[in-house]
Amino acid sequence: MSYKTILVIADGMADRPIKELESKTPLEAATKPNLDHIAKHGICGIMDPIAPGIPPGSDTSTLAILGYDPFKVYSGRGALEAEGSGVEVLPGDVAFRCNFATVNKDLVVLDRRAGRIANEDAAKLATSLGKIRLQPFLRIRYQFKNTVQHRAILVIRGPKLSSAVSDSDPEAIGKKVLDIKPLDNSVEAKRTAQIVNMLIHSFHEVLSKHPVNKLRAESNLPVANMILCRGAGNIPRIPTLQEKYDIKPACVAAVSLIKGVSKIAGMDLISVKGATGTVQTDYMAKAKAAVQSLKKHDFVLLHVKATDVASHDGNVKLKIEIIEKIDKMLGYILSNTDADSTIIAVTADHTTSLATRNHEGDPVPIMIMGPGVRCDDVVDFGERTCAKGGLNRIRGLDLMPTLMSLMGKTKKFGA
Amino acid sequence: MSYKTILVIADGMADRPIKELESKTPLEAATKPNLDHIAKHGICGIMDPIAPGIPPGSDTSTLAILGYDPFKVYSGRGALEAEGSGVEVLPGDVAFRCNFATVNKDLVVLDRRAGRIANEDAAKLATSLGKIRLQPFLRIRYQFKNTVQHRAILVIRGPKLSSAVSDSDPEAIGKKVLDIKPLDNSVEAKRTAQIVNMLIHSFHEVLSKHPVNKLRAESNLPVANMILCRGAGNIPRIPTLQEKYDIKPACVAAVSLIKGVSKIAGMDLISVKGATGTVQTDYMAKAKAAVQSLKKHDFVLLHVKATDVASHDGNVKLKIEIIEKIDKMLGYILSNTDADSTIIAVTADHTTSLATRNHEGDPVPIMIMGPGVRCDDVVDFGERTCAKGGLNRIRGLDLMPTLMSLMGKTKKFGA
Repeated sequence: MSYKTILVIADGMADRPIKELESKTPLEAATKPNLDHIAKHGICGIMDPIAPGIPPGSDTSTLAILGYDPFKVYSGRGALEAEGSGVEVLPGDVAFRCNFATVNKDLVVLDRRAGRIANEDAAKLATSLGKIRLQPFLRIRYQFKNTVQHRAILVIRGPKLSSAVSDSDPEAIGKKVLDIKPLDNSVEAKRTAQIVNMLIHSFHEVLSKHPVNKLRAESNLPVANMILCRGAGNIPRIPTLQEKYDIKPACVAAVSLIKGVSKIAGMDLISVKGATGTVQTDYMAKAKAAVQSLKKHDFVLLHVKATDVASHDGNVKLKIEIIEKIDKMLGYILSNTDADSTIIAVTADHTTSLATRNHEGDPVPIMIMGPGVRCDDVVDFGERTCAKGGLNRIRGLDLMPTLMSLMGKTKKFGA
Repeated sequence: MSYKTILVIADGMADRPIKELESKTPLEAATKPNLDHIAKHGICGIMDPIAPGIPPGSDTSTLAILGYDPFKVYSGRGALEAEGSGVEVLPGDVAFRCNFATVNKDLVVLDRRAGRIANEDAAKLATSLGKIRLQPFLRIRYQFKNTVQHRAILVIRGPKLSSAVSDSDPEAIGKKVLDIKPLDNSVEAKRTAQIVNMLIHSFHEVLSKHPVNKLRAESNLPVANMILCRGAGNIPRIPTLQEKYDIKPACVAAVSLIKGVSKIAGMDLISVKGATGTVQTDYMAKAKAAVQSLKKHDFVLLHVKATDVASHDGNVKLKIEIIEKIDKMLGYILSNTDADSTIIAVTADHTTSLATRNHEGDPVPIMIMGPGVRCDDVVDFGERTCAKGGLNRIRGLDLMPTLMSLMGKTKKFGA
């Protein structure tokens, strides 16, 4: 028998008890018959994506959950997001996450997102920004690409570059754009900082005179006259999941960051119409795509961002609604996969607290249903019920070996 | 909301079931309504201070519980105890824990504690021991200080010293005082051993002729004619808790060792009148001091030694009584802190078995109550009830990140 695995990660779904819900968590308060069905027929546990008490980012957590130690391979979000946006990042390149922003003549930030500029405007501006001529002796090439709304990617390529440079994004309105500074004493970091500062200056010049911005000003829209850069990073060199486990993996995700992590892990990225990474994403289209891709793949990661969005907004009701939509996705998956050969795992990449609106270091619930699983007596899926489950408390890095062992894809250590 | 944490460590409180208590542990047998209240309204678990099965010292355990990996930073108890006794230890210094002892003319130990010599006598002897002239070419300075009763500290300072030297304390009556030997082949270790052996010889000469000892002999008290040295160590260089977590920490503890660990972790040491580190300590004065210091600090470690003392003495009844006194301390803390902003954690630094009278490698119970905690269904505080709690099984090193995450003081790893 050959087994297939579908791993559902609900971003920031785990939470803390809140008074508003009579000291329940949103997951505990939600109506979720399908999630509970999996808990009842599977094995449950709690999982520290990184380690107890450490609030993970979605990038570091997803790396860990896919079996890559983020302490060894992670060097900033930029490169992962670039990969996920379809911008090629080669080893040695330095990638930044960027925002189109609005600044005044003193370079003080007035709007970090240039009024959440529309994709069409951003695309036109990005095209112009791609044409700046750098002095040839620098031997630098760069790529600038807009992604969604105000978000964009900058990748620079050439000799002697380093990701050890600071951000230009002050991450607050009313503050001046920062100079990018080297974070160590290396020649590479100094050179990289100089080049990126130079580019940002040129971007500002081009943007300030750009016809799109003239039209925006005339329409009383915030002009996108600055590019803010942050999260400099290199692409980690890691063995793919095929290489590690001899599986054929795919990823159904909308947000660039998760797509980037999945791509460097060697997963096929499945595009889904209507999957947006927002609260209004087409949940069922993603579930269908995941089930569909199980035909040609044997490991599918299905990622839903919306739970995290609702948490960061502190929207209790919405978070519960989204969990209930995720439950329906699992209903579809349960009805359309073969129970005798499919392993279904559900977890969150981190706790995002509705109360603090931040990622927190609490463990997340995890459950695994499928052939061979040592089903325990947990009958509903929640942060606290899972803590009593048969998996006890594991780490993010433990999950892939656990799943791969159930799939018969792990190699014996010893004789 | 800004949160405050009070962490209570009852030294050696955890135990094994004993027949005398109908196979309960002392903690399970004690009447402890306040500890049980915290268990009921908090999250419980078991914790391996170092790792499963490893019996920790109070020093290594407290280091781990405060977030410092003892395998990386610990090099012997001497330096920590010296720091806690108010003796300055600089990087490079080598510190020893010492005992005033009684030996016969063949240097065979008759009493390892010189009849638990009174502080006054020890102080007079220590003053004389501080005045020995070493050969100038050695470029060595040293400090010798008595602490409580027979206990004392020796710190040597100078070039080319090493803590890789053995003890002179044979740790048994009837055995001869040992030569201190280098534990590796380094020049530094050989030189350190020579110097300390020389000092010990000089100490013996001074003590043998000392008027205090003549008076002691006349009064039929054991003479304090030898200094036994053990636990050579350097001071670890570690970032303070302020640096790591941006908190303002304080420690309420009576024993030098815990004060030393706390001091190098950057904690303010709070002196409490009547706090002795013995069974007769003023428990309530310590509880009051801890609550009081929460006004100017946001993290307070409250350490109680007495549970360990009773355990080493094999005194079942006394251990239970002390646990019940600690319960009353928690009652005071509960009544005098704000439940909406205070995190209360209670644990032990290790298991000390009444049966074996030794530190053992069993895990310790741990519980945490406070805002945001995922309260579990454990309703009483014990070694076995806590094993069913929502924290499952953690390590000592996991505790600070867990508490700091609840306080909102951990930094996100990733984006």
